[in-house]
Amino acid sequence: MSISITPIGIIETPFDDLKGMPIQPSGAAKIQGTIVIDKEYEQGLSDLEGFSHIILLYHFHQSKGYDLIVKPFMDDHKRGLFSTRAPRRPNPIGLSIVRLIKREGNRLIIKGIDVLNGTPLLDIKPYVPRFDTKEVTAIGWLENNQEKSVFLKSDDRFIET
Amino acid sequence: MSISITPIGIIETPFDDLKGMPIQPSGAAKIQGTIVIDKEYEQGLSDLEGFSHIILLYHFHQSKGYDLIVKPFMDDHKRGLFSTRAPRRPNPIGLSIVRLIKREGNRLIIKGIDVLNGTPLLDIKPYVPRFDTKEVTAIGWLENNQEKSVFLKSDDRFIET
Repeated sequence: MSISITPIGIIETPFDDLKGMPIQPSGAAKIQGTIVIDKEYEQGLSDLEGFSHIILLYHFHQSKGYDLIVKPFMDDHKRGLFSTRAPRRPNPIGLSIVRLIKREGNRLIIKGIDVLNGTPLLDIKPYVPRFDTKEVTAIGWLENNQEKSVFLKSDDRFIET
Repeated sequence: MSISITPIGIIETPFDDLKGMPIQPSGAAKIQGTIVIDKEYEQGLSDLEGFSHIILLYHFHQSKGYDLIVKPFMDDHKRGLFSTRAPRRPNPIGLSIVRLIKREGNRLIIKGIDVLNGTPLLDIKPYVPRFDTKEVTAIGWLENNQEKSVFLKSDDRFIET
């Protein structure tokens, strides 16, 4: 049983090449991008401007195939695919949470975007802390690498400060 | 240009009927579910058990069609679809962040699940605070309803306590 999905727009970013892209949203925090929604969906953007952050689902359109064991950018060890955010997945759907700066008709100006220019957008959802902010107690293999310090608060909980 | 996606497994929950389901993850916090991953993808679950929370992308398989203006469960006003988490969307892909209790082979025991029993799973990603926890400053139309109190901390920032 397969499901057919169709992009609702395009994400424009400064990144025309996979090389040299930020590998984490934090590296892209100041990067501005523009979402251009197809005109037929523009009405669905109403009320979105009230939210400071939005969730983007998009197609990793440059990814072909997948491996179930991968070596992440941030680690020297091979890891199970689903414990990583690697783009080559059985269903190559990416997820990024970005800051919404403003809406101009069918265009959304966003900040903190880390995808390739021309990435096909599949969905937009409002980021709602009650649903989407979790007090995690473990971040798996990420605990073992250089990124650890940025996850730690003084009380040693793995919450971003 | 359409993209074909195929479920990688099934989410088993106590909810066999859309009626009477929790409308928010918080209402489902204690609800346990099981993800059954197709055997061919089982290897990709390695290392996932180290994470306390995981992101699920799934198919709203009972949703047909969509409207661009909808009346959310939690509001009396009509809102733009993309400012809501309503299931009837151009691409009916749902997103829930759940607690991972344990893995047993190709099965993941999870807590805080709010989807229908038998929901087709499309992807699993680790929940990483640095990527996925945002200090929001506005939650749009949600500020105007009864849910407001649970979003507010004493400093009036819209972060879940």
